Amino acid sequence: MNHAVILAGGGGTRLWPASRRGRPKQLLALGADTRETLLHATWRRVAGVVGDNVWVVTAADQAEAVAAALPELSREHVLAEPVARSTAAAVGLAAAYLAARDPDAVLAIFPADHHIGDEPGYAATVERALAVAAESGAIVAIGIRPTRPETGFGWLEPGAAAAGGRAREVARFVEKPDRPTAERYLERGLLWNGGMFFFPAARMLAEIARHLPALAAGLDELRAAGFDAAATARVYPRLPAISIDHGVMERASGTLLIEGDFGWSDVGSWDALAEVRRADAAGNVVAGRAVLVDARDNVVHAEDGCLIALVGVTGLVVVRAGNAVLVVPRDRAQDVREIVKRLEQGDGDAYL
Amino acid sequence: MNHAVILAGGGGTRLWPASRRGRPKQLLALGADTRETLLHATWRRVAGVVGDNVWVVTAADQAEAVAAALPELSREHVLAEPVARSTAAAVGLAAAYLAARDPDAVLAIFPADHHIGDEPGYAATVERALAVAAESGAIVAIGIRPTRPETGFGWLEPGAAAAGGRAREVARFVEKPDRPTAERYLERGLLWNGGMFFFPAARMLAEIARHLPALAAGLDELRAAGFDAAATARVYPRLPAISIDHGVMERASGTLLIEGDFGWSDVGSWDALAEVRRADAAGNVVAGRAVLVDARDNVVHAEDGCLIALVGVTGLVVVRAGNAVLVVPRDRAQDVREIVKRLEQGDGDAYL
Repeated sequence: MNHAVILAGGGGTRLWPASRRGRPKQLLALGADTRETLLHATWRRVAGVVGDNVWVVTAADQAEAVAAALPELSREHVLAEPVARSTAAAVGLAAAYLAARDPDAVLAIFPADHHIGDEPGYAATVERALAVAAESGAIVAIGIRPTRPETGFGWLEPGAAAAGGRAREVARFVEKPDRPTAERYLERGLLWNGGMFFFPAARMLAEIARHLPALAAGLDELRAAGFDAAATARVYPRLPAISIDHGVMERASGTLLIEGDFGWSDVGSWDALAEVRRADAAGNVVAGRAVLVDARDNVVHAEDGCLIALVGVTGLVVVRAGNAVLVVPRDRAQDVREIVKRLEQGDGDAYL
Repeated sequence: MNHAVILAGGGGTRLWPASRRGRPKQLLALGADTRETLLHATWRRVAGVVGDNVWVVTAADQAEAVAAALPELSREHVLAEPVARSTAAAVGLAAAYLAARDPDAVLAIFPADHHIGDEPGYAATVERALAVAAESGAIVAIGIRPTRPETGFGWLEPGAAAAGGRAREVARFVEKPDRPTAERYLERGLLWNGGMFFFPAARMLAEIARHLPALAAGLDELRAAGFDAAATARVYPRLPAISIDHGVMERASGTLLIEGDFGWSDVGSWDALAEVRRADAAGNVVAGRAVLVDARDNVVHAEDGCLIALVGVTGLVVVRAGNAVLVVPRDRAQDVREIVKRLEQGDGDAYL
C-alpha cells in the first residue's frame, strides 16, 4: 500500500518574524492561499493521492501544534520524535513503523514546508514516482526542473533512461554548489533535489542496514518494543544525526529520478513569496492589509489584520508579524538570519 | 501676573500611524525623551517660567485625554472648546477668561506640539518676551532663527530695534512661501514664525475688538455669562474660524519680535525626528526597540515594546504604532498624508 510521510521538523529563521521558535515555517500560511498553512497544503495534496495513509513525523514539542494544524489527520498518524536526529532517523522511523504494519508498504517522503503551484501536475508526478518505486523496488527521487542557478539546493544529475522510459537513473547527487558551478549545472540540465523520495519500506530499511548500521540497530530495538514511547525516548537520543541525502541517497545504488515541473518552491526566504503569490500591476506581492503609494516590486506580508503602508519604495520586503517588523531589500532577504543571530546573542528572546 | 496658555487642538496626519483621530500629535512622545508627550514637555517648560499659571485650551472631546496627560495641572486650568474655531477664538477665549480674573494678566501663547532642544535658552527668551510685552504693552512674537528654506512655515521680517534693544519691530508677517521665496528669506535674515505670542490680555482684547468684532462680541457674551458651559456651547459655534496670525497678528500695530534660537522643531513630519533625537554613528535615529544591520540614516519609531529590524536599507522612515506600519523614504515623509487620505476614502477607519 502507498503511504505518504510528511517530515515536519524544521524551523526556518529566514522567515522571521513570521517564523518563531514556537511557530516554525510549516505552520505559516505562506502559500498562494494566505489562510492555509504550508503543512496543511502538503497534507491536502498528498491525501489526494494516498487517502488516509498520510503520516507526519515531527518533534515531540511540536506534535500538538502539528495535530491542531491538521484536524483531518488521525492523531495516531503523528509520529513524535523525542529529540531531533535529522532526516535519516525520521525516514527510518517511518519506514520501520509502517513496514511493521504493512510489509509491502511503499513510502513517499515530503517536506512539510514547500509550495506547489500546479497541484494536478504534482499529483501525477507523485503517482508515477510511487508506481515506479513499487515496480522497480528502487529509491526514486523527484528532480525539480530548475529556473535559476540556485546555490541553496542540492542538485541531481540525470543518467540513462530507466523503468521503461518513465524515469532515469541518478548519475549523481551533488551538494549545494557555488554560483559558477550552479550556472554550469543549469546549462547541463541538472535538476534540483526537492527532498521528495519514494521507495518500498523494505528497500529503505535494507539501505539503512547497509549504510547506517547504528540507525538500523536503533530501529530494530524500536520495532522489538512495538515503537512504544518509553523505547523511543530511550533509543532516539543514541541515533546518528545525519540527513537522508548524505546517509542514504548518495550511497544507495540504482536510485532513479523522475523530473518534476509543477511550480515547486521551497519558500526559502521572503523574496521567494514572489514565486508563490500573484503580483499586482506594479509588481507588488501583498498578503494581508496594505496601502501602497508609488510602491513597486515590494513583497508585503501583514498578519493579524494589521496594515502596512508603503510610500515611494521599491524592491523591499516588509513584514509585520506579532511583535516585530522586518524591512529588507528583496535581494538581501537571506540576511534575515543575521537579525535572528543578533536577537539570540542579545536579550531578544521575546522576539524569537 | 504672567500666564502661559497652551493651545492643544491639532491633529497631525503627517505623523500617522502614531497620530490617530483619538491620539493627536501633542499626545505623542515624539521628543528627545521617548516617554514624555510633546504636550507634557510643553507644560513642564512653561511651568518652569510661570509656575501654576498654566492653562490649556483644547477641544471638549480631547479634554479628558489632555487632563490625563497633564496630571500636575489643575483640572480647572483646562479650557474646553465645544467646537474647533481655529486659534483666534482659542486665544480670545483665554485672554477674556484670564482678564476677567486678573485685569493685568500678561499671556504667553504656546503650541502644544513643538520640541525645544535648548530649554534654558527657551526659558530665558520666554521670560524676556513676557517682560517686553508687560512693559511695552505690545504683542510680542518669537522669531525662530531658521536653519533651512522651509516652505511649511510663515516667516517674520525683523524691523528696527525696539524696547531698548531687547526686541525689534515686526516689519511684516509673510505667508508660507514657495521655495525660491523661502531661499531669499533665508538669505535676507527673515525668521520663522514659531506660533509663540506674548501680550497683555487687555491689549489682545482691544486688537480683537478692532479687527475681529464678531469674535469680540462672542467673548463679551461669554464674559457676561461667567464663561459657563451653557454659554460656551451656545456662543462658540457662532465665532469666526480664523487663525490668530491672519485675524490679529498681521493686522495689529506695533507688534514686536524677539529672536529665538533654542533648538526649536515643530516635529512636523517623521523626518523631523532627526532634528529632535540623537542619531547613532551610522546616522540612524531610533526610538523604541530596533535591530539594525547595514542600515544608515534611517528614522525608526517602534511603540509598545515592538521591535523593528532593518537590514541593508538607507534613508527610510519606518514606524510601527498600534495596528499599522509605515515605510517611506525620509525625503517623502510629507506624503504620509496620501496614505491617510486613501484610508479616509476607503474602509480604513480601523487605522485612522
